[in-house]
Amino acid sequence: MRIGVDYYPEQWDENMWESDADRMKEIGVNIVRLAEFAWSKLEPVEGNYDFAWLDRAIQLFADRGIEVILGTPTCTPPQWMLHNYPEIIQVDQHGNRVATGIRGHRCMNSPMFREFCRRIITKMVSRYRDWDSVIGYQIDNELEANQCRCSVCQERFRSWVKRKYGTIEEVNQAYGNIVWSGEFSDFDEIMPPMGEHLLWMNPSLHLDYQCYASDSTVGYARYQAELIRKLDSDAKITTNTWLCEHMPDFYDLFSNMDFVSYDNYPTAELPQNPRELYSHAFHLDLMRGIQGKPYWIMEQLSGIVGSWAPMGRTPKPGMLKGYALQAYAHGADAVLHFRWRTAKAGAEMYWHGILDPSNVPGRRYQEFRDLCQIVGTLPEMEGAMPVNKVAVLYSSLQEYAFKLQHQAEGMYYLEYLKSWHDAFTCLGIGVDIIAWDAPLKQYDIVVAPNLLINDDRVVRHLYDFTERGGTLLLTNRCGVKDENNQCMTEAIPSVYRDLTGITVREYDPLGMVIRKLDIQNDAWADNLGKWSKRVAADQEYSKVSCTRWCDLLEIHMGSVEVLASYGEEFYQGTPAVSRNPYGKGWCYYIGTGLHREAYIALAETILQERKMSYYADLPIGVELTERTKGENTWQFLFNNTEQRQVVSLEEEILLEPFEMRVIPS
Amino acid sequence: MRIGVDYYPEQWDENMWESDADRMKEIGVNIVRLAEFAWSKLEPVEGNYDFAWLDRAIQLFADRGIEVILGTPTCTPPQWMLHNYPEIIQVDQHGNRVATGIRGHRCMNSPMFREFCRRIITKMVSRYRDWDSVIGYQIDNELEANQCRCSVCQERFRSWVKRKYGTIEEVNQAYGNIVWSGEFSDFDEIMPPMGEHLLWMNPSLHLDYQCYASDSTVGYARYQAELIRKLDSDAKITTNTWLCEHMPDFYDLFSNMDFVSYDNYPTAELPQNPRELYSHAFHLDLMRGIQGKPYWIMEQLSGIVGSWAPMGRTPKPGMLKGYALQAYAHGADAVLHFRWRTAKAGAEMYWHGILDPSNVPGRRYQEFRDLCQIVGTLPEMEGAMPVNKVAVLYSSLQEYAFKLQHQAEGMYYLEYLKSWHDAFTCLGIGVDIIAWDAPLKQYDIVVAPNLLINDDRVVRHLYDFTERGGTLLLTNRCGVKDENNQCMTEAIPSVYRDLTGITVREYDPLGMVIRKLDIQNDAWADNLGKWSKRVAADQEYSKVSCTRWCDLLEIHMGSVEVLASYGEEFYQGTPAVSRNPYGKGWCYYIGTGLHREAYIALAETILQERKMSYYADLPIGVELTERTKGENTWQFLFNNTEQRQVVSLEEEILLEPFEMRVIPS
Amino acid sequence: MRIGVDYYPEQWDENMWESDADRMKEIGVNIVRLAEFAWSKLEPVEGNYDFAWLDRAIQLFADRGIEVILGTPTCTPPQWMLHNYPEIIQVDQHGNRVATGIRGHRCMNSPMFREFCRRIITKMVSRYRDWDSVIGYQIDNELEANQCRCSVCQERFRSWVKRKYGTIEEVNQAYGNIVWSGEFSDFDEIMPPMGEHLLWMNPSLHLDYQCYASDSTVGYARYQAELIRKLDSDAKITTNTWLCEHMPDFYDLFSNMDFVSYDNYPTAELPQNPRELYSHAFHLDLMRGIQGKPYWIMEQLSGIVGSWAPMGRTPKPGMLKGYALQAYAHGADAVLHFRWRTAKAGAEMYWHGILDPSNVPGRRYQEFRDLCQIVGTLPEMEGAMPVNKVAVLYSSLQEYAFKLQHQAEGMYYLEYLKSWHDAFTCLGIGVDIIAWDAPLKQYDIVVAPNLLINDDRVVRHLYDFTERGGTLLLTNRCGVKDENNQCMTEAIPSVYRDLTGITVREYDPLGMVIRKLDIQNDAWADNLGKWSKRVAADQEYSKVSCTRWCDLLEIHMGSVEVLASYGEEFYQGTPAVSRNPYGKGWCYYIGTGLHREAYIALAETILQERKMSYYADLPIGVELTERTKGENTWQFLFNNTEQRQVVSLEEEILLEPFEMRVIPS
Repeated sequence: MRIGVDYYPEQWDENMWESDADRMKEIGVNIVRLAEFAWSKLEPVEGNYDFAWLDRAIQLFADRGIEVILGTPTCTPPQWMLHNYPEIIQVDQHGNRVATGIRGHRCMNSPMFREFCRRIITKMVSRYRDWDSVIGYQIDNELEANQCRCSVCQERFRSWVKRKYGTIEEVNQAYGNIVWSGEFSDFDEIMPPMGEHLLWMNPSLHLDYQCYASDSTVGYARYQAELIRKLDSDAKITTNTWLCEHMPDFYDLFSNMDFVSYDNYPTAELPQNPRELYSHAFHLDLMRGIQGKPYWIMEQLSGIVGSWAPMGRTPKPGMLKGYALQAYAHGADAVLHFRWRTAKAGAEMYWHGILDPSNVPGRRYQEFRDLCQIVGTLPEMEGAMPVNKVAVLYSSLQEYAFKLQHQAEGMYYLEYLKSWHDAFTCLGIGVDIIAWDAPLKQYDIVVAPNLLINDDRVVRHLYDFTERGGTLLLTNRCGVKDENNQCMTEAIPSVYRDLTGITVREYDPLGMVIRKLDIQNDAWADNLGKWSKRVAADQEYSKVSCTRWCDLLEIHMGSVEVLASYGEEFYQGTPAVSRNPYGKGWCYYIGTGLHREAYIALAETILQERKMSYYADLPIGVELTERTKGENTWQFLFNNTEQRQVVSLEEEILLEPFEMRVIPS
Repeated sequence: MRIGVDYYPEQWDENMWESDADRMKEIGVNIVRLAEFAWSKLEPVEGNYDFAWLDRAIQLFADRGIEVILGTPTCTPPQWMLHNYPEIIQVDQHGNRVATGIRGHRCMNSPMFREFCRRIITKMVSRYRDWDSVIGYQIDNELEANQCRCSVCQERFRSWVKRKYGTIEEVNQAYGNIVWSGEFSDFDEIMPPMGEHLLWMNPSLHLDYQCYASDSTVGYARYQAELIRKLDSDAKITTNTWLCEHMPDFYDLFSNMDFVSYDNYPTAELPQNPRELYSHAFHLDLMRGIQGKPYWIMEQLSGIVGSWAPMGRTPKPGMLKGYALQAYAHGADAVLHFRWRTAKAGAEMYWHGILDPSNVPGRRYQEFRDLCQIVGTLPEMEGAMPVNKVAVLYSSLQEYAFKLQHQAEGMYYLEYLKSWHDAFTCLGIGVDIIAWDAPLKQYDIVVAPNLLINDDRVVRHLYDFTERGGTLLLTNRCGVKDENNQCMTEAIPSVYRDLTGITVREYDPLGMVIRKLDIQNDAWADNLGKWSKRVAADQEYSKVSCTRWCDLLEIHMGSVEVLASYGEEFYQGTPAVSRNPYGKGWCYYIGTGLHREAYIALAETILQERKMSYYADLPIGVELTERTKGENTWQFLFNNTEQRQVVSLEEEILLEPFEMRVIPS
Repeated sequence: MRIGVDYYPEQWDENMWESDADRMKEIGVNIVRLAEFAWSKLEPVEGNYDFAWLDRAIQLFADRGIEVILGTPTCTPPQWMLHNYPEIIQVDQHGNRVATGIRGHRCMNSPMFREFCRRIITKMVSRYRDWDSVIGYQIDNELEANQCRCSVCQERFRSWVKRKYGTIEEVNQAYGNIVWSGEFSDFDEIMPPMGEHLLWMNPSLHLDYQCYASDSTVGYARYQAELIRKLDSDAKITTNTWLCEHMPDFYDLFSNMDFVSYDNYPTAELPQNPRELYSHAFHLDLMRGIQGKPYWIMEQLSGIVGSWAPMGRTPKPGMLKGYALQAYAHGADAVLHFRWRTAKAGAEMYWHGILDPSNVPGRRYQEFRDLCQIVGTLPEMEGAMPVNKVAVLYSSLQEYAFKLQHQAEGMYYLEYLKSWHDAFTCLGIGVDIIAWDAPLKQYDIVVAPNLLINDDRVVRHLYDFTERGGTLLLTNRCGVKDENNQCMTEAIPSVYRDLTGITVREYDPLGMVIRKLDIQNDAWADNLGKWSKRVAADQEYSKVSCTRWCDLLEIHMGSVEVLASYGEEFYQGTPAVSRNPYGKGWCYYIGTGLHREAYIALAETILQERKMSYYADLPIGVELTERTKGENTWQFLFNNTEQRQVVSLEEEILLEPFEMRVIPS
């Protein structure tokens, strides 16, 4: 398996390079990422390229059998370019060019900038395509959905809208522009959402804008990918993604790349309250699900983070190693730590690497060395994947829609997904996070939280899945909107009416308020009793409570079983959670937000019902995952807690904090 | 009495109109508001008007005996107008045109925009003046004091200043511009307050700017009103006002309109702490006082509110109906619920109407139907008014002045007014909120809180009122400023010295700090003992405390009685509350902020003293009001709590939560 | 000694001047500051000067033997100037000219503005140089380091950088611009940090910008000072400084002025928790240390403060007088209260003076009269200075660097300095706050907190000082950066390795978290036992705790004694505080943040060790200071608490709250 670092030779005296490479070789590094931010060093003057230094760096690694992945340096255009071609600088939501001096100022759509990209990438790929040790390219860096409002981008947005709808009448219809006299007479009148009050904008237009913004970034990444591929058809192509404010659609972004890469910075401070959800594994499973293939960690936590913000706590012993091994356990084929040595200059100097600027090996270095050694002993499981029976559906579209219209205080799309992912994880069940429109055949249980916006194809999938015998979980805020982000004119959950057997009579957005819930289903109640003790023995309302949002359910099919109803408010006794047999399967409807222990208990109930095996006694915070390749299957145990844990599988296994264990089976 | 809804036919398929109208007719709706935001539908292309659809909608209602009030659609100029005439777009305090795409972007002073208004209003009124069912017009929507800083508005502000003062020397004098070398040489140098730090601006100029801003909006509304009246002298004219950040002067705004309209959105979440003031009735009484006539509710709470902000809680059962009936009890002649059906599109889609987009009648619809039925059984009391003996004075000028210079943390002008309004309300006494310069003859008790800025006429009124036998209540921060918002050079309370018999030796802005207060007056102390038990039995400092601000009183007339003095700090023992006989009346001076129970107890003391009858045992939160017309007087009981309450009048009356009862007398 | 007020005759009717002057004379005022903001009155029209009114005002004071210091009125250019020469208006970090209407809008570098300054100052000084009673000038007002980003200032910044580095290659090297491709090709590309995300900017460039900004303001002040001196070589020249967001380097600012002036506004609300540090005396000692000479208080707290913010509490009895006397006790030769009479107009009208606008003498006036009388009885100690043995080093450069990169939550440079100043102050030891590069010969103990950025000369000073027998205290975050704000490539504390005998193996930024600390040194532990009782008997973790930051020390010299080690976390047992003999002296390293009582106890331990005498029983909050002149030494006791305190020196001395006593020795 690949283990490595991000390395910036251009930031250090060349006389350090050799000893750096020697050290890496010695401890077992087999891959480095280079050149990501080095444009000014590669093209110091417009049209004058200097790759000689990079040749020397790559050669040092090649000599030691260390592979290289190169970053296209386009996230950081050189100062001369920004100065001489100001039209390539992004424009913010107020219509002003952003202040330069940081990074990422480029307008991805600027024709001039694209031309500069074309030139530098052509130079780079043409030069290195014959170098065996250069195995591929990372495109740009941490791409966000393009929020530039320059005139080029405005025009692009208009064209996007025109392509989608054809006529201005269709646009007005789709956006419901008649409200507040927002009807356009002409495409020229269409503007991206701008100004201070973006959340006041028409949500249909705004959602389209976010989709356009994703497409815009995807288009830029494709432009680079196609260019590289044309020059070097063998090169592996990826880009390093992350969870940020404006996320491009991951499935689109990677659709023509070779593998997914992720920048992985789990927290150094775990929540102390066991009821508080901590689900970093969700991120890893999300990444694996993008292509349904193993992914790379292109940047891995290596020390204290902080720079523009105050520094956070130092990672505890075992975290560096453990979090990296956790990534492999969840499907990574490579982990590159950010970064070999902490920068001694620049805005990011307190974002700590493996080594300090002093170059003196310390605790982090020792831990990284251990890690490299362990990775060296891992089975060769490149390409190995888990075969999971539970999936949680993820959708960028829903994610955007929830951000644009915050439903209730404290209610976040990703939190719902994480809660379900966590519930099954606590039971030792591997979970896939997959695209909401992905095929569902392989799964027994599919959780589809918050399907706010309808999509015919997805709806058909879900009906089919259930009909064929699957267990489907739907939640509040599903079936609320049509594909244009307008409200459905059928009662919620509209398209899911037959599947669920219920209608949402009305709803109460509780926000942060907590209310009692009465559980009618015995199995769930029993399980909950057990989990309440384990998770939240001393918490207020610990046994049965709900929060964030209450759908008041009306049952319109005799087949529906009410699993829980509200225990307070004027709607006391009203059904809150229900299940309905459909075809050979079941559809659950969870109309309210639960607490951690209730999610786990419900997940357990469903597993029991389906007679699926699970691990009832897994300590909370311990993850049990699998990867399979051909004949081989490996099981992994990872202790994501600060305490020593004992796991009883066939034998008792003792796990130190953050320890990962491979159990060949 | 009138009961109705705001209806937006243009937002729905025309095939739904008839069933909507039928339903309205069936449940008892007799008035609808139309066309408020429909400019783009009425003038889809510059100069091309289309009223046919509106004709058809009005006709449907006319056929069913339902009256119509039309909104002039000027709050939402169409996109073609904003695009082709960008000079009509408002400019913000930083000098930038605001981003369009929401609503209300128009500069009210733009000559071009005025011309477009003239044309559409002329078309509208000319068309409908002969339609009997069209009874009048609402001008624009929720008008705020004009904060536009475009060059036209800047020039208007300069002209306003010039008209007020004549010469630049007078301006410099009035503003005290000598401070910080702020003297103007020429009117050209005068600018509206701009930039980030508005509260650092000269408070005299800034107050003038707020007055100008009010005048500017009033001028715009008058422009429309005069235009309508010229075309249709019988039309009823109003505009729907609300309590917002920049409120125009209500008395000016409605001075040439036929009645006042208010957008009424009481909270769905009542405070749980009985000590925390909740005084929504204050708003209603404020509205009734603007013209001293019944008012309309043009938009009434119909469900969950929220859209750009997260959604709030759903109104509890009884709230929809109860809050509407409360409005009638406080002097409304009409209530229109916003809106018939929740929008399925646009930024406001989560601001819930009576019906959901599903059109399925639910709890809210049932409650509205009940309401319509009850309104149908109300006595015909159009025009009926209460005859109250207690008034609280309101002044936009003071409201502006307090906002521009925040006196102490947590100290707000409206809170002071509400505290007094609440105190008398808790005793079953009807309260008028009237303009600070209104005649006072009809009143026995006048509360004049926070008369920061002096006005000769008002001062004369107050002296006269007291001399003739009235009881006047003055508070801290009265008599502090001259009419230019400069500090008086006489000791506070300056012009009220003779009336109060006291001088403010110095003051201590407590802010949120709470300090002990010693009550010397026996009656007040007795009453307070009783009210402390009822209101705040378990609260810290519940018996006697003060907060926000402490005036240290110096008594300079032997006639003055000290009612309370401070119980802590270096000024322990210093008078805090006093009363002075003046002529045949009394003037109270309340030098500090009290807690709810102390306000109530003091109000009771004053009522006892004047031997006015009141209701000593009214449950807190129950309002007792009256309306009289000719021979008839009706009493109203409204239970503004979530608990069932029993009221002992001549008989015991049981009130459900939010129930309103009419008691003919 | 001088005692006086800031007086604004231009803001009051001339017929009040004489009685004002009479009153001042009567109570003992002997100095007034005039004309600070009066430019519009002195030059009402461009080129037309009117000094006649100022002549008359000065003459009134001269007639009464009251001296005058004049402010150059350049902080408030008249409106005509801003209007006719908009290029003199500052540009903000977003590139926009600031909104005028407040004060301080001038760009200090604007050539046109400099010319206007030259003319008005020339007029003023030429006129008054022969007036005996006009003793000097205050330059401008509360100068901040110049943050203007106009094109003139941008160019100035570029020139500053060019002067410092010579070539663009040197700049790139110094800034580490290779990171994120930030390399400049040409000086033209250099921009000041702009936009919203200043803290994301390159910290090396950003620190240079702050140094430039200081130099820029210093240059402006020098321009005025040189002009004045050329016209009147005898005039005393100063400027009134304060602690603000962007402080110029105080040592530079006053390097060619006659004395330091400070605007002194201690809080009216002392912290109630004795563990919470309150160290206003630090400010005074900082001011005295700038030139190592007595300073003036040019503005002294006189009443409630507030205007744009809500008003704060009124000063308690004794504060006005006491805080002024405290200033003398710490080295002031003059105190001028701001202001004689509260402004009746303008944005600052709630920033209270000695008198209210009513002109009625109140409590504050009485207290000020007492003060004047007491000052009249003070010994003539102009020029007298303390001879202290303890110094704390202050550095603007470190202050800037800490602000630009916030190390950990709650960790502030000035707080560290104050903690040490407070510790020795609690033991009755006078402390000098001096420039970090000042000579150290006179001191026994030097505290050098947070020397983040290295300077060769300072390092040499510290080694020499210790070698010669001094006790040096270093803390965490010293030796971290080179002079360009890049990280040292030697292990922390780099240059202090030999002095401290330790290396920082790694660190944990605790932020607001509190962790246990084990004290190994018996003397410190004993002292701490005592101080814990006195300071924080009832506080959690009161005995031994650390916070903010933990350096994990590695001892590499046998001579090092570990004084304390960590009591929690994975680094339990790791040294936290150490001391090392060096030459004839000792170097302490305090690797973590302590609580107040631990600082005091450690200071006491060090004093005991050096056998220096101190006051072990001084009540907390009582300050004991000294001033010496020739043969004479005076001791001062100041009670900076709200309680009566008894001090046992040779006799028992009773101090009322805020009382100051002179004890001649």
